[in-house]
Amino acid sequence: MPDMMTAVIKPGPGMGLEMTQRPVPEIGPNEVLVKVKAASICGTDLHIYKWDKWAESRIRPPVIVGHEVCGEVVARGVMVVEPKVGDFVSLESHVICNICSYCRTGRGHICQNTRLIGVDRDGGFAEYIAIDAQNAWVNPPDMPVEIAVLQENFGNAVHTAFTTDVTSKKVLITGCGPVGVMTIAVAKAAGARAIYATDVSDYRLNLARAMGADLAVHAKEDVIESIRAATDGEGVDVLLEMSGAPSAIEQGFTLLKPGGEAALLGVAPGPFTFDWNHHIVFKAARVYGVSGRKLWETWYQSRGLVRSGAVDLSPVVTHRFLLREYDKAFEVMASGESGKVVLFP
Amino acid sequence: MPDMMTAVIKPGPGMGLEMTQRPVPEIGPNEVLVKVKAASICGTDLHIYKWDKWAESRIRPPVIVGHEVCGEVVARGVMVVEPKVGDFVSLESHVICNICSYCRTGRGHICQNTRLIGVDRDGGFAEYIAIDAQNAWVNPPDMPVEIAVLQENFGNAVHTAFTTDVTSKKVLITGCGPVGVMTIAVAKAAGARAIYATDVSDYRLNLARAMGADLAVHAKEDVIESIRAATDGEGVDVLLEMSGAPSAIEQGFTLLKPGGEAALLGVAPGPFTFDWNHHIVFKAARVYGVSGRKLWETWYQSRGLVRSGAVDLSPVVTHRFLLREYDKAFEVMASGESGKVVLFP
Amino acid sequence: MPDMMTAVIKPGPGMGLEMTQRPVPEIGPNEVLVKVKAASICGTDLHIYKWDKWAESRIRPPVIVGHEVCGEVVARGVMVVEPKVGDFVSLESHVICNICSYCRTGRGHICQNTRLIGVDRDGGFAEYIAIDAQNAWVNPPDMPVEIAVLQENFGNAVHTAFTTDVTSKKVLITGCGPVGVMTIAVAKAAGARAIYATDVSDYRLNLARAMGADLAVHAKEDVIESIRAATDGEGVDVLLEMSGAPSAIEQGFTLLKPGGEAALLGVAPGPFTFDWNHHIVFKAARVYGVSGRKLWETWYQSRGLVRSGAVDLSPVVTHRFLLREYDKAFEVMASGESGKVVLFP
Amino acid sequence: MPDMMTAVIKPGPGMGLEMTQRPVPEIGPNEVLVKVKAASICGTDLHIYKWDKWAESRIRPPVIVGHEVCGEVVARGVMVVEPKVGDFVSLESHVICNICSYCRTGRGHICQNTRLIGVDRDGGFAEYIAIDAQNAWVNPPDMPVEIAVLQENFGNAVHTAFTTDVTSKKVLITGCGPVGVMTIAVAKAAGARAIYATDVSDYRLNLARAMGADLAVHAKEDVIESIRAATDGEGVDVLLEMSGAPSAIEQGFTLLKPGGEAALLGVAPGPFTFDWNHHIVFKAARVYGVSGRKLWETWYQSRGLVRSGAVDLSPVVTHRFLLREYDKAFEVMASGESGKVVLFP
Repeated sequence: MPDMMTAVIKPGPGMGLEMTQRPVPEIGPNEVLVKVKAASICGTDLHIYKWDKWAESRIRPPVIVGHEVCGEVVARGVMVVEPKVGDFVSLESHVICNICSYCRTGRGHICQNTRLIGVDRDGGFAEYIAIDAQNAWVNPPDMPVEIAVLQENFGNAVHTAFTTDVTSKKVLITGCGPVGVMTIAVAKAAGARAIYATDVSDYRLNLARAMGADLAVHAKEDVIESIRAATDGEGVDVLLEMSGAPSAIEQGFTLLKPGGEAALLGVAPGPFTFDWNHHIVFKAARVYGVSGRKLWETWYQSRGLVRSGAVDLSPVVTHRFLLREYDKAFEVMASGESGKVVLFP
Repeated sequence: MPDMMTAVIKPGPGMGLEMTQRPVPEIGPNEVLVKVKAASICGTDLHIYKWDKWAESRIRPPVIVGHEVCGEVVARGVMVVEPKVGDFVSLESHVICNICSYCRTGRGHICQNTRLIGVDRDGGFAEYIAIDAQNAWVNPPDMPVEIAVLQENFGNAVHTAFTTDVTSKKVLITGCGPVGVMTIAVAKAAGARAIYATDVSDYRLNLARAMGADLAVHAKEDVIESIRAATDGEGVDVLLEMSGAPSAIEQGFTLLKPGGEAALLGVAPGPFTFDWNHHIVFKAARVYGVSGRKLWETWYQSRGLVRSGAVDLSPVVTHRFLLREYDKAFEVMASGESGKVVLFP
Repeated sequence: MPDMMTAVIKPGPGMGLEMTQRPVPEIGPNEVLVKVKAASICGTDLHIYKWDKWAESRIRPPVIVGHEVCGEVVARGVMVVEPKVGDFVSLESHVICNICSYCRTGRGHICQNTRLIGVDRDGGFAEYIAIDAQNAWVNPPDMPVEIAVLQENFGNAVHTAFTTDVTSKKVLITGCGPVGVMTIAVAKAAGARAIYATDVSDYRLNLARAMGADLAVHAKEDVIESIRAATDGEGVDVLLEMSGAPSAIEQGFTLLKPGGEAALLGVAPGPFTFDWNHHIVFKAARVYGVSGRKLWETWYQSRGLVRSGAVDLSPVVTHRFLLREYDKAFEVMASGESGKVVLFP
Repeated sequence: MPDMMTAVIKPGPGMGLEMTQRPVPEIGPNEVLVKVKAASICGTDLHIYKWDKWAESRIRPPVIVGHEVCGEVVARGVMVVEPKVGDFVSLESHVICNICSYCRTGRGHICQNTRLIGVDRDGGFAEYIAIDAQNAWVNPPDMPVEIAVLQENFGNAVHTAFTTDVTSKKVLITGCGPVGVMTIAVAKAAGARAIYATDVSDYRLNLARAMGADLAVHAKEDVIESIRAATDGEGVDVLLEMSGAPSAIEQGFTLLKPGGEAALLGVAPGPFTFDWNHHIVFKAARVYGVSGRKLWETWYQSRGLVRSGAVDLSPVVTHRFLLREYDKAFEVMASGESGKVVLFP
């Protein structure tokens, strides 16, 4: 093992990131050391790059960025039983406490003591990362690296879709970023009757169609009329909200049928005005906030969908860069003209 | 059967109601004629009395008011199998279409063709009412009349509470009108660990305590601090929102624990600003709009709770009037210094 | 309308059926008259044909046989709102009472007053059938007749599969008769990770493979070893039991993982010995009896699967006969060398 | 800390137990040492005492017996965060592996690598016991010792009852041993409409009545007729099977209504003949095997019921002995004339 490694860090307050040398991390008794094979860029990373309000309030630089990571286990602590050295793993980015009431009732995804890699502690835009053994998910050895690296974010899609019942239902997905289009693939794999999608980017609407959307509508066009027409005037049974845009939320709930289900992953820019009565109460809507992935039920579900071939994630990866080209990669990501952007150390 | 009967109607636009004579209604082949024994006043009736915006948009006068009704079946149409003449019945106020997709999948409570008695068609502040046979729920003959008349509104309480899982849980009920305090009784009967209640009326907070609230806090006091203190800083597992007040909704969701459940029956005065991210998304809250009663599952559940003695509704009825005293009755109801107000023809 | 029609009846006790002339049925105020376009043969019909113990105890001849039926509405009773004359409908064979507690709580499929067409009252192996309007399910006009006629039996498959959660799961289907192979298609459409199937007929195992089974094993071979090997020694998450054979039930529960789900549609020849402790209690298995179709939730789900193209039922129909060739049709059906056998009047 | 302690062990094959001196156990980095305050006798302990077939197949003597234990934490391993030294704890007897797919999906109660204290490793009929920190459940300091010691077994009752929905329902509990009567208390606390109970011991039927059964019938009397009469001929909505007796299972399923739920905790003496068709398939019954307690959801639910006062467990403890009187205690336990028998070191 070398002593030092290359890493991309947030060096301090302000725009941008920096490539630097850092010590290869030491591991505790319950941790493993993972040699990173690939790391992909998430919307969260973009917030950190741009140093917006959220980043300012949450990040304590310097920190190695990146939480969508796959790699090989190269060392493990003395108490670790699984995984083994040599295993090819994807990482769950939420490191949970295991002792709070949420962790102790199978709800670790809402553990209030969670620490995120790449946010609250060092992440994976680096050659190595140390992480709790339980956060290393073993992949089949022959899984393509650029599919393996998607598992964490794909889990958001799986968790959101499976919070509702999409099978045989008409489903609207608002927001066609990488997680949105993966959600389309999940709904398709689970036998949705029809899948409608909206976004503000034509690039992403095309990606949505490639992933299985029956109808993809630009959010500035007449979304409500188009989808009403496509559903015999009835609207949709399920809304999967991946955009966080109040206008999309408004459209989505307007189209949601009485008794319908809405799962919300998108983060809004702030509080907004909402017609509680008509959109939830009178409609007897069921609305679910979604956070992270169910640990580790979502991972098992994701594995089932990928290994059976029901979901093909390969169209989601649209751009690949070397880690040292991180600036170019973030530029592409910020343009909205991409699916997933993957970095290789 | 007499030809004419006394009835309290909304005669036309504007404040107030009017007592008048109307023909005893004729019944169709699937209907029954019920001789009214008691009718209670609902918040909805108060809106109609006051002729607010909602009433103006919905009501087409003249119409006989009143939808919380019990009485005796005195005649039935040729195709009716149940109930029998002589049965003592409470009425379900939602007359559903039976042929839409909601009705055909056990979700008649969200039938979009529903017609409400006392709102969309003649109601029960009268000596007689004609209604679909399936809307007449047979009570035990010895059930006290003023308990029987509560069944419809009690069903809202049961439906709201049982949309969530309250057993062994810490429960907050915002809004202690009649349906709110009945919800307290339901949560108590179902084994809630602790019940917290808020309202703006001291009278109603006392009623809440009488119905089983462990802690009843005035909404203008420090609700959040009091209930946090009572829950070891953790907040509540379940929110049952019966007030429609945006400030109560804000307090309720602030107190709701991550992963918690919120059932919403209260109707807000209009759209309002809400912190979607912190109150639903990040918290992975599950939020359920509640409408009417499940037809007729809620009625069976209500029967179970009342007949076992697990719920005692008698403290809810605080005022009794003759039908012709309806003006006095509405005055009491409007004061906020009452539980349920019952009218006897 | 003609006065008389051709019909295939069970004329009295004993083997076989008989073709005869019967009056075209009259319809009640809530009924429709359907001109039959196709009727398919169910296992139940075979029991009636053979006049086994079950048939002897249940059937009161003479009765027109057949309960899987589609056709055109040619007349309707005075109180019928839907369907319209001219609609192309499939029939739900269970005519329920609408007034018992099961019917009134969205569980009409377990109504204890149910009367089955072709069993308790005249069925559809005839030119016309009279049936309650609510039992006529409107198909798209362009649905192929031989697909439309499968809807009732397909509903058994949908109901059984959706009583459990098959998405991303490993699923074992014991019994590959027509309903078994349709269940394979449902599990596939809903994103099962892998589908295993067993039967005693090579013909049906081939059909199972055509409908999407990943592995189809003859029940006399080493089922347990084969499926254990295919599942890394772990067994299956879900068992869908369509055979009623105690040996298949034993194999299925042996292969079911702890915490697994089993849905049971198959009818056993009688009571049998079962290892309750190891197969249910210690394993914390969840076991669901399945009866008929959820009225009408299953029909909506079935429609979703068929109209989206997620399920293709066409391989299921393997034989077609004119109604007057019914004896030949029953012979094929009895041979085990068939999928669905359809009769055309 | 002393070096040696008194313990009751199974010394080798054959009837009976033995009191002896054993070293006070050492603890690992994730374990705590608990000074036992009380330990109660379970049916399982009786099997070990009598050395029946099950015991012979499972137990590898010598082993310290006893798995229902409460006490004080007197030492803890270096990696333990909770509980603290001085905490008053009850023990979860199932020590799970934390790494299998069941443990990783919130279903540790069906972990196939579980080791039971007092069975697979040393138990708590002793002065001290070493156990994983996560298995020590912190009680309020003022909880009576003889209530605290019941928590583990009470959890079986809570888990069984809450696997079904008992609120407002008619519930039959077959088997009134200690866990059976605690299940009665849970059903009562959760608002069951009526509770029926059966057993072969008059002593236990009286205990059942004291814990809240509305009707307690001797299993040799006409159980079916009595309970049919008490339920207007309809039977029960929920069956909680705690006896394992095939005759009780037969009675229970005969009384179960269509669509009803049955949760099974009782262990049968072996495979038995069962009418699968009528008891499960045609009835669309939902049947759940129950194993242990949900870790640790059941413990939180149990705490809620006890702390709110909804359940009072004090009548369950009928006999108290010093640990050295263990032979007398087992004699009482074997007589069937007892509730819970508690030992004090």
